[in-house]
Amino acid sequence: MTTAATPAREIKPNAMPTTSPNGSTGVMRALVKHHAGPGLQMVDNRPIPAIGPRDVLIRVRKVGICGTDRHIWEWDHWAANRIPVGIVTGHEFVGTIERVGSAVTKFKPGLRVSAEGHICSGTDYNARTGNAHIARDTKILGVDRDGVFAEFVSVPEENVWPVHANIPDHIAAVLDPLGNAVHTVMAANVSAKTVLITGVGIIGLMAVTVAKTAGASRIFVTDVDDKRLKLAKKLGAAEAWKANDPKWIEKIRQHTRGDGPDVLLEMSGHTGAIDDGFKALRMGGTAALLGIPSRAISFDLTSHVVFKGATVLGINGRRMFETWYQMEELLLSGRLELDEIVTHQIPFADFAKGFALMQSGEGIKIVMNVAE
Amino acid sequence: MTTAATPAREIKPNAMPTTSPNGSTGVMRALVKHHAGPGLQMVDNRPIPAIGPRDVLIRVRKVGICGTDRHIWEWDHWAANRIPVGIVTGHEFVGTIERVGSAVTKFKPGLRVSAEGHICSGTDYNARTGNAHIARDTKILGVDRDGVFAEFVSVPEENVWPVHANIPDHIAAVLDPLGNAVHTVMAANVSAKTVLITGVGIIGLMAVTVAKTAGASRIFVTDVDDKRLKLAKKLGAAEAWKANDPKWIEKIRQHTRGDGPDVLLEMSGHTGAIDDGFKALRMGGTAALLGIPSRAISFDLTSHVVFKGATVLGINGRRMFETWYQMEELLLSGRLELDEIVTHQIPFADFAKGFALMQSGEGIKIVMNVAE
Amino acid sequence: MTTAATPAREIKPNAMPTTSPNGSTGVMRALVKHHAGPGLQMVDNRPIPAIGPRDVLIRVRKVGICGTDRHIWEWDHWAANRIPVGIVTGHEFVGTIERVGSAVTKFKPGLRVSAEGHICSGTDYNARTGNAHIARDTKILGVDRDGVFAEFVSVPEENVWPVHANIPDHIAAVLDPLGNAVHTVMAANVSAKTVLITGVGIIGLMAVTVAKTAGASRIFVTDVDDKRLKLAKKLGAAEAWKANDPKWIEKIRQHTRGDGPDVLLEMSGHTGAIDDGFKALRMGGTAALLGIPSRAISFDLTSHVVFKGATVLGINGRRMFETWYQMEELLLSGRLELDEIVTHQIPFADFAKGFALMQSGEGIKIVMNVAE
Amino acid sequence: MTTAATPAREIKPNAMPTTSPNGSTGVMRALVKHHAGPGLQMVDNRPIPAIGPRDVLIRVRKVGICGTDRHIWEWDHWAANRIPVGIVTGHEFVGTIERVGSAVTKFKPGLRVSAEGHICSGTDYNARTGNAHIARDTKILGVDRDGVFAEFVSVPEENVWPVHANIPDHIAAVLDPLGNAVHTVMAANVSAKTVLITGVGIIGLMAVTVAKTAGASRIFVTDVDDKRLKLAKKLGAAEAWKANDPKWIEKIRQHTRGDGPDVLLEMSGHTGAIDDGFKALRMGGTAALLGIPSRAISFDLTSHVVFKGATVLGINGRRMFETWYQMEELLLSGRLELDEIVTHQIPFADFAKGFALMQSGEGIKIVMNVAE
Repeated sequence: MTTAATPAREIKPNAMPTTSPNGSTGVMRALVKHHAGPGLQMVDNRPIPAIGPRDVLIRVRKVGICGTDRHIWEWDHWAANRIPVGIVTGHEFVGTIERVGSAVTKFKPGLRVSAEGHICSGTDYNARTGNAHIARDTKILGVDRDGVFAEFVSVPEENVWPVHANIPDHIAAVLDPLGNAVHTVMAANVSAKTVLITGVGIIGLMAVTVAKTAGASRIFVTDVDDKRLKLAKKLGAAEAWKANDPKWIEKIRQHTRGDGPDVLLEMSGHTGAIDDGFKALRMGGTAALLGIPSRAISFDLTSHVVFKGATVLGINGRRMFETWYQMEELLLSGRLELDEIVTHQIPFADFAKGFALMQSGEGIKIVMNVAE
Repeated sequence: MTTAATPAREIKPNAMPTTSPNGSTGVMRALVKHHAGPGLQMVDNRPIPAIGPRDVLIRVRKVGICGTDRHIWEWDHWAANRIPVGIVTGHEFVGTIERVGSAVTKFKPGLRVSAEGHICSGTDYNARTGNAHIARDTKILGVDRDGVFAEFVSVPEENVWPVHANIPDHIAAVLDPLGNAVHTVMAANVSAKTVLITGVGIIGLMAVTVAKTAGASRIFVTDVDDKRLKLAKKLGAAEAWKANDPKWIEKIRQHTRGDGPDVLLEMSGHTGAIDDGFKALRMGGTAALLGIPSRAISFDLTSHVVFKGATVLGINGRRMFETWYQMEELLLSGRLELDEIVTHQIPFADFAKGFALMQSGEGIKIVMNVAE
Repeated sequence: MTTAATPAREIKPNAMPTTSPNGSTGVMRALVKHHAGPGLQMVDNRPIPAIGPRDVLIRVRKVGICGTDRHIWEWDHWAANRIPVGIVTGHEFVGTIERVGSAVTKFKPGLRVSAEGHICSGTDYNARTGNAHIARDTKILGVDRDGVFAEFVSVPEENVWPVHANIPDHIAAVLDPLGNAVHTVMAANVSAKTVLITGVGIIGLMAVTVAKTAGASRIFVTDVDDKRLKLAKKLGAAEAWKANDPKWIEKIRQHTRGDGPDVLLEMSGHTGAIDDGFKALRMGGTAALLGIPSRAISFDLTSHVVFKGATVLGINGRRMFETWYQMEELLLSGRLELDEIVTHQIPFADFAKGFALMQSGEGIKIVMNVAE
Repeated sequence: MTTAATPAREIKPNAMPTTSPNGSTGVMRALVKHHAGPGLQMVDNRPIPAIGPRDVLIRVRKVGICGTDRHIWEWDHWAANRIPVGIVTGHEFVGTIERVGSAVTKFKPGLRVSAEGHICSGTDYNARTGNAHIARDTKILGVDRDGVFAEFVSVPEENVWPVHANIPDHIAAVLDPLGNAVHTVMAANVSAKTVLITGVGIIGLMAVTVAKTAGASRIFVTDVDDKRLKLAKKLGAAEAWKANDPKWIEKIRQHTRGDGPDVLLEMSGHTGAIDDGFKALRMGGTAALLGIPSRAISFDLTSHVVFKGATVLGINGRRMFETWYQMEELLLSGRLELDEIVTHQIPFADFAKGFALMQSGEGIKIVMNVAE
C-alpha cells in the first residue's frame, strides 16, 4: 500500500474487530505496535484471531516488509495519526487456510493463499462494480485492523486469493506490492509503447520488469540512487538517468522521435520528479501516478495536463481482482525478474534486522519467514 | 480555443504566410490587430489572401466572437506575448468555398464549409494518428496566422469541414467552441452518468446541453453568476449552485448515493472551483479539464487523483475530425439547445458593439454577419 | 433473460436447493411447472423457501412475465430440455426483504429490493472481475432453481439490488429485461452515434428509449410488426421500416452520409435480420447481439466482420452490477419512456390471461401483482 | 493484405491512373500480370510511373511476396475477378524517394521509406478519423493500381512511411504483412493475457513473436503443419497443437484455469479452425479475426458470441498510422524475432523461384532484391 499524511481517522484499539478471544483456540507470536513511538514488539501471547461466519483463519508462512510498515515502525506523522496502538502490523503475506467460518463456501482449509488487504462491506458503487479497492468503507489489514506479522490472520473469504502452484512462497509473500506495480502498469496500457518511470524504489523496480513483460517497447527510468539505476538497467530499462541530470529530458526526446515517452509511471512522489515527468511526457500521453506527495504541491495543470491533452490516472491499491489475475499471468509467463528485488529472506525473530536492512538501503524487499 | 499566459512565441508579422498579395485578386474588409494595444481596426483594403496549391479560399458568411478574441481585443498579457501585430483575428466561422488551389482534390467551389483552426504539417505522431489538434507544429487561425474576421480566409483543404445542410449558418459559425464542449463531454464518456460542470461560461453552457444530448443522466452546475446558473437549469441542469455555497458538495452527494458525481467537467479555470470539483468527484470518477488556470496552482494530487483513483483528461481543441462528426450527429439529433446561447447576431460593421456585449455579460455568444 | 435450444442440462427436481422445508415458516401461493407439457399451475401450499446463512427471503410484490416464461409455459424444445418439472418459474420482480440469514451483513428486513437472477459461487475469473453474469457455474432464478412467481423467493444477499425510492413498483418489477436492453445499449457505446435496432419486441422497444436517453443521436428500427414499428417511432425512433422493405438499407445509408449506421443492436435473432443488419452497418461499426438464433446460421464472417473491420459484442444478461447502476441512472434522468411498454398490470390469479395477452400480441410487458 | 472471393469489381486496365507516360522520364523493369492466366511476366520497358502534384516517386529496393501475389500468380477465382490484366503487381516494399510532386510538402528525395498500400481520397468518415484503411473508396497498390514489383512506384505522400534507421531493409520490405499481425494483436489487447492463435502461416507466425513482444503472457497455437508448429514454439509459443488433435481444447483449458484463453487470434480462415477457436475461447473473451473464409460459413452465433459474451473484432489492413508506429516500437524493442520468418532473399530476376519456394512451403516469407 501507499501512505500520505492524511487526516487522522479516529480508530481506537478497542474497536478492532479481530482481537476478541472468543472462537480462538490459543495464543500466537505477533509483531505489535506496542506504544506510541518508534519500534515494534514481538509478543508470544497474542490471542489467535477469532473468525466470524464468513471469515477464514490463515496460518501465515512468509511476510514482506512494506514501506508502510517502516512508517509505522518509525512512528512518523502519518503513522501517529492513523495507526491504533496495540495493532498487529503487516499486510504482505502468503499462508495456508487453517479454519473457515460456518458460512464460508468459497475456500477450504489446506489451500495455499494470499489475500487482498483492502476489506470493505461490499455494498457501495465501487465495491459492486469491480473497484472494491476504492470502496468508501475500506479498512486495511495491518493499518486499520490486525495484520499479518503474526502466526495467524483472519480475513473475509471474499478477500482470499488462492496462489497458483507454480508461484514460490517468497514471491507469493509480496503479491501486494507487486500488485501495486501491476495495477499502475496495466492501467497505463504500455503494450508497444515507450515508458518513463520516475523513481525506482521497490515498486518502481518491480514496475520495470512488469512493464517489460507486459509489452512496453522501451523503458526509461530516473532516480537519485546510482545502485537502483544500475539494477533498473539490469531488469530491462533501456536508459537510466540521474534525476538531477539537466539533460535527461532532452535525451529521452532523442530516443522518442522528439516527442517524449508515451507513458509516465510516477513512483517517486517528489514534486520535482512529477514536474519533470510531465514535462517529458509527449503530447497526448498517459501518466499513471502511484507516488504520493505528502502535501498539496504546486502543479502546472495548464501545461502538464490541459494543453498537453494528457490522460492522468490515479493509482491506489490493486483492482479486485482483475489486477491479481494479471499478476498471476505475468508470473506464469516466466519473464518477470523478481529475484534481485526480493534481496533478503530472514527469520521472523530477526525482524529488527529486516527493518534495519530496509532503512540502510542495503536491502530492497525483505521477506520474513514466520512459519519454519 | 482556450488561452493562458504561455511563454511568448517569437512570431513576427512579416512571417505570416498568407498576407503575400500574389495570387490574390483584390482587396477585402478585415478586422485587424492594428497596434500593440487595446481594440481592433476595420480596414477595407486588406489584400485577399493568396492560396497555395493545397489551400482553399473561403468567402466568409458569419463569424463568432471567442473569449480568445476578447483577450486579443483587450491586449492582455497573453495576447501581447502571443499575437503578431497586423494579424487578421477570428477563428469561428462559416462560409463558402470561393476558389481552390491547383492540387486540391477533396472539395470544390460552392461548398458551404467551416474549418478546423488548428493547422499543422501532418507529419508527426499525433497528426498521423487522429490527434492533429495536438501536433507539435500547430498554428492557429486568427492567432498565429490570418483569421476569419474578414471577407475571405485561406486554409489547407485538410482543415475544411463541409457543413450539413440541416445546420443553419448562425450555428455553423460557432462549431469551433461547440467542438470544445463536445470534445470535453465525449472524452469524459457521460452516457448514463451524473455530471458536474464547474463554470458555465459560453462553453460551460454549451456543455450542459451537449452532455444532456449525449446521454448524461443528471447534470449539476456551479458558477458565480446567477443569470448563467438560471440559464443552465433551463438548458437541462438538474441543480445549479452558487460556487460559494458552502453546502453544495454535501448537496451533490445527497443526489448521488453519497458518492459524488461520476464525471467532472472543469470549465472555469479557477483554482477554488478546481479544488472543489475534485473534492466533489466520486472515488474512481473521471475529470475532464478544459478551463485553464493562468499559472501553476496549488493542487492536492494525493487526495484528488492518486487516492481517489481518478482519471483526469486534459482537453485541448477538438479531435480532427472525430469531434466534428460527433458534433454533426448531436446537432442532427434535434436535441441540442443553442438558441439561448447564441444571443446576438449583428452586422460585421458593429464589431465594437459585439465586443461590448460580451464584456458587459449582456451577450453570451455574439455572431457577426460578414456577408450580407 | 434470453433463451435458445441449448443442450439439455441434467437437472432433477429433487436437486433444487430451495424446496427443503427446514427454516420455512409455512406455505405460500406459487406458479409451478407442474408437468412436462404446456401451462403452469397455481398452488397455494408451496413451502416458503428456506434460507441459508447468506440468503435473504424476499416477499414478492410484483412480477413481470418474460419471453422465457412463455417458452416454459408453451413447453417448447428448449424448455423441455432445460426446465426441471416442479420448479417455481419467473425471474422478474420487486419485493421487500422479509428475513435474512444468520451471516447476512449487507441488507436488512424491510428494504424494497429486486435481485439479479444469475446466481453463482463467486469464485471464477468472470465472477471476480465484474462479470459474474457469465460465470461458469451460474444458475438462473426461475429456470434452474425456484423463481419469483410466488409469494416468497430466496436469493443470496450478493444478488440483492436495493430499489431507489423514485422508481415505482411496476417499473422495478421489470428491471431484469430493462437491464438486458441497457446492457446491450451501453456495451455498444451509442453516445452521439446513429443506431439501428433490428427487432422491436419487448427488449427492442426498451432499447429504443434506452438508446435515446443514453445519447444516441438518431435511432432507426426494423421489424415485421406495424404496431411495434409505430410504437418505436413514438418512443423516439427517427425512422421505422418493415424488415421486408427492399429499400430500407438504401434509405438508412441516405440518412447516414452514405456510410450506414454506427451501431447495430440486433434484437430479433432471425437470420435474415442479422444478415441485413450487418449489411447496413457502416465500415468499422459496432454490432451488439442480444437476439439468439435457435441454431447455427449461415453467416458471412468475411464481408460482415473481417473486411468491414466491425466490432461484434455478444450480450448476455446484465453486468453485475454496473448495468444495474446505469439502469438506475437512466431511470432517474426522467427521460426513459416505459409506460407504453408495460401495457398491463393484472392480479396474480389472472396469470393465464397474462400469458394469453402476451401470446396474442395485445400486450407487450405484462406485470402481475402478487401481493395486494 | 488478405483476399477472398468478393464480387468482381469492374476495373479495366485502361482505367489505371499511373500508367500514363506523361511525367515519366524513361522505362523500368517490372513484373506484370501480362495475361488472364497463371504466371507473371518480367518486362524491361515499362514506363516509369508519372507522379501527380501530391505524389512521390519511390525507387524500390526490396519487395516481399504476399499470399495475395500468389493468388494473382495462380490466377484463381478471386484474382480473375479482381485483378486488371496489365497491372504491375506487389505491395510489400522498401525504397528511397526519387522525386516528389510539385505540391508535396511532407517528404523529400533521398528518404528511405515504405508506404501504406491502401490509397483513398481522404474524404469519408473513416478516412478522417484514423481509419483510412477501411475508407469507402480505397484502392490497393498492386491489386487495383500499379504496385511495387518494379524499379519505381508512385504513391500519394499521405501514404509514405519513413523507415527508422535501425530497421534493416529486409525487414522494412515486409512491414505490410507485419502490420497485419501487429494490427490483429494490438486490437485484441494481449498484455498479460493468454492467447490462442489458430493458423500459423506467415502472418500467424509473425503474430506469435508480435504477441509475445506486446506482452501476451502465454501463447498457444494450432495448425496442420508440423514444421510451422515447431517454428511457432521456437518463436515463443508455450504449446503448439495439431489442429486435428481431438484433445487440444481440453489441454488449453487445463493451462488456463479451466476457462480457456483470454484471446483468440484467428489466422487460418478455415471453418473448422474458426469453430474450434471459438469453442476454446473463455466466456467474455476477445476474438480478433484476420483469416477469411472464401464464402459464408455455418457459424454458431448463439454459443460462440451471444451466450459467450464475446467481443469479436474484424481485422483488415493496418490502422493508418497507429499500427505503423506500434510496429516501429515493437521492432525497436529488439524482441521481435523475424529472421526465421524471412527465410529467403533472392534477386528480382529469380521471381519464379520465389513463387515456387512459397508454393512448396520450403520458404515462408520471400524477399526479392529489386535494386542491387
